[in-house]
Amino acid sequence: VVATTDMLLEGRHFRRDWSPPYDIGRKAAAQNLSDVAAMGARPTVLLVGLGAPPATPVSWVEALYDGLRDECALVGASVAGGDVVKSDEVVIAVTALGDLAGRAPVTRSGARPGDIVALNGRLGFAAAGMEALSRGDTEPADLIAAHRRPRPPYPAGPEAAVAGATAMLDVSDGLVQDLGHIAAASGVRIELFGAAIPLPPTHPEDALHLALTGGEDHALVATFPPMTALGESWRTIGRVAEGEGVVVDGKRYCHGGWDHFR
Amino acid sequence: VVATTDMLLEGRHFRRDWSPPYDIGRKAAAQNLSDVAAMGARPTVLLVGLGAPPATPVSWVEALYDGLRDECALVGASVAGGDVVKSDEVVIAVTALGDLAGRAPVTRSGARPGDIVALNGRLGFAAAGMEALSRGDTEPADLIAAHRRPRPPYPAGPEAAVAGATAMLDVSDGLVQDLGHIAAASGVRIELFGAAIPLPPTHPEDALHLALTGGEDHALVATFPPMTALGESWRTIGRVAEGEGVVVDGKRYCHGGWDHFR
Repeated sequence: VVATTDMLLEGRHFRRDWSPPYDIGRKAAAQNLSDVAAMGARPTVLLVGLGAPPATPVSWVEALYDGLRDECALVGASVAGGDVVKSDEVVIAVTALGDLAGRAPVTRSGARPGDIVALNGRLGFAAAGMEALSRGDTEPADLIAAHRRPRPPYPAGPEAAVAGATAMLDVSDGLVQDLGHIAAASGVRIELFGAAIPLPPTHPEDALHLALTGGEDHALVATFPPMTALGESWRTIGRVAEGEGVVVDGKRYCHGGWDHFR
Repeated sequence: VVATTDMLLEGRHFRRDWSPPYDIGRKAAAQNLSDVAAMGARPTVLLVGLGAPPATPVSWVEALYDGLRDECALVGASVAGGDVVKSDEVVIAVTALGDLAGRAPVTRSGARPGDIVALNGRLGFAAAGMEALSRGDTEPADLIAAHRRPRPPYPAGPEAAVAGATAMLDVSDGLVQDLGHIAAASGVRIELFGAAIPLPPTHPEDALHLALTGGEDHALVATFPPMTALGESWRTIGRVAEGEGVVVDGKRYCHGGWDHFR
């Protein structure tokens, strides 16, 4: 069994005026189910703690749980329990459990010099959608939809584990920042190839920045021994070297992702 | 594996002026570890989501986690992970996992007419302590300590499972209210013997009310087949009959426990 937990707060992780409750539920489930997939496991169960003001419409709560349920259904998981309390703001605490099917979990600490770095999923879509919403825009619809409802490549997690991934995580805070966790935990340097990074469909001037720093698309990024045969949904974006930190074409990318206390 | 989750909010589940952070940690861990024990499992791991204002002193957070750690140590469990976010009020979301050692979990739905109802632990202590704090008192010290730091009888959970418990839970909201969950889930009536209920050391006029409705001492209450041999820490307080609801000496006790949305 693997387990992961996240806490989402109104105003910080979601806005009730930016996302309907169904999408908030989908997203809250997605980010935890994705964490489970990133350990190489199949998600099985969600536990949901909900804090809500007494004036919260029951229909809002029902739509939230509909979203949680439907996202779980994508991977054969279900909401198995939780807790409900009164609070001033809406706060959602989600815990996901997963089944490793007897395999060891894929952690962040197994990357070795010589490994390749491969990506499965989208980068910068959700961040571009959030920027559009911040400007008061309702377009582009596909980017705004990506912000409201991420589409993590769940099956790619266990697939990567079976293929021999040495380290893996899902990109929740930004590619460079999250790969920094693998670099630190593994004691290695991650070298990204700028030209190999898939870009979101935004203004070309913003695209690389969004791809390197945008979170919440929950792409999976993993390291594999060289010569590992990977399915076509995986794209090689870099390699692991001796050293420390993360570089893009040899340079440090200094604009970090999300700092929780900034 | 069994799992349980709870969300604790400042002002509602704890007050920073009533309890030091170490005790808040002990209590937050205790109520979840106790839930695991009540399923007949040995607690193994805690996941902790913490929301806190940026001005929260680091020493406060460290003491909170010291308390979480030390309560876990009582049962050989540990804090294995979590999440930290910025919030206006302190909110703590705790998930506990436990190991059934191959046994089926003890649920709320297995009580059968003819079973005995047995209790392990204290009733009404924490509620009496909270009443004292509400009055601005600092005495009686043992009751206030019971409010700040419950002492659930953890080993009694797996012990009851091995002994053949048909249903079990820990008393977190009040004996009558919580036994109502077993009555409803099992489709039975729970008949309590008033004279058998252990009373807290308070004014005799309040004692039975506190024992029947006070939560947060996390006593374990379980149903067992008649003639089950139980250790001396278990006290028979009633029996299971056909019907519905919970009665004390044949009468319904109408003052419920804690209503989360009252």
